Amino acid sequence: MIRVTTVDWVPPFARGLLRDLRLRWALEEAGLSYEMKFVPLMGRDDPGYRALQPFGQIPTYEEEGLKLFETGAILLRLAEKSPALAPAKNAANDAAKDATRGAEWAEMTQWLFAALNTVEPQLQAITMHDRFHKDKDWFEGARASVVEIAEKRLGDLAQAIAGRPYLAAGRFTVADIAMTTVLRIPGHTDLVTSIPALAAYLEAMEARPAFQKALAAQLADIDANAPKG
Amino acid sequence: MIRVTTVDWVPPFARGLLRDLRLRWALEEAGLSYEMKFVPLMGRDDPGYRALQPFGQIPTYEEEGLKLFETGAILLRLAEKSPALAPAKNAANDAAKDATRGAEWAEMTQWLFAALNTVEPQLQAITMHDRFHKDKDWFEGARASVVEIAEKRLGDLAQAIAGRPYLAAGRFTVADIAMTTVLRIPGHTDLVTSIPALAAYLEAMEARPAFQKALAAQLADIDANAPKG
Repeated sequence: MIRVTTVDWVPPFARGLLRDLRLRWALEEAGLSYEMKFVPLMGRDDPGYRALQPFGQIPTYEEEGLKLFETGAILLRLAEKSPALAPAKNAANDAAKDATRGAEWAEMTQWLFAALNTVEPQLQAITMHDRFHKDKDWFEGARASVVEIAEKRLGDLAQAIAGRPYLAAGRFTVADIAMTTVLRIPGHTDLVTSIPALAAYLEAMEARPAFQKALAAQLADIDANAPKG
Repeated sequence: MIRVTTVDWVPPFARGLLRDLRLRWALEEAGLSYEMKFVPLMGRDDPGYRALQPFGQIPTYEEEGLKLFETGAILLRLAEKSPALAPAKNAANDAAKDATRGAEWAEMTQWLFAALNTVEPQLQAITMHDRFHKDKDWFEGARASVVEIAEKRLGDLAQAIAGRPYLAAGRFTVADIAMTTVLRIPGHTDLVTSIPALAAYLEAMEARPAFQKALAAQLADIDANAPKG
């Protein structure tokens, strides 16, 4: 049995943005059964949770004989399990097919890292400013400097994916899961939606039934665990 | 033949920090032969280079039938090629060994993403401030906010790796290459070196002959390509 651990509740601005969405979505696409486990929002520094996740982040992932953190690594693990998430890596007894498929796999990992190392940090920096530093006297100047880099990255991305339905290997892969959830981060702004190629990509990805199911489940869990009173 | 493309020259503060070091180091560890190709520092927006790297970053990687960007993805590609860089992934005809090795591979990818998605963005943000924003009136406040997060991540990392010579699978892997080069980013500060567990890890990694050879080659190439006059 696969188990995904995330926080039990978050304030409204983070609803639908928790990184467990990446894993819920991938598991729904793959048709793999899983259970959710919840850690208190303020319990991420407890030794028990730190043993699972040394940085106190969410989500974590468990399967028989394996515990993992970092959504990028978990997405690659799931990609190895399910043909719904990735091109096949090896075709037994066919060296030519192996080479092609190995190249497609590499292209997928390339775009997975592009989402998480090249795009996400820039968008996350904007969210950090808008959520936690709006009252600081350095807010305006500092925010403008991170927006400048984010806009450059988003413009480059739009040029790269314009007219392509998927990032890699001509098909839906875990790279699309990562990039879509990254592009949702500045959803309180029009940074992404004002760029037609990115708006179209995001809309198509968010229309997938597995995404819709995963998002609804995250929102329902957060609501069910909301502080009473 | 493997080819790595990087910029021809950078100002002094970036010497020894260019991301091509990750690939040079991995290739030296693996004993794989490769050639370097150089693009002008200001030529990264040219269409020819953008066709290789849509974000205009360095390095890029080429081998027969494959072009890749994102150092994380390239390190995983090299990890599949060389037992010097990663635990073996599959042992033919031995399901028990396959499961163990699959878990070790996953642990390696987990720490590779931890380096590039959890630690690098925080350290890179400090460098961006110190190199490009020191004269801004918002510098002090904004820098303090990114240092606070970086210190938390570094403290968590120190606790996780204290007493362990390597990040994953009980051996040297590409995750160590990524984390070491990430920890070098704030080398103009004592943020990393003031934490004993991280200082010891960094020192041990930087002492590896393949690292030394790769670093010397990067510095020599930058010097050879320096503007004349």
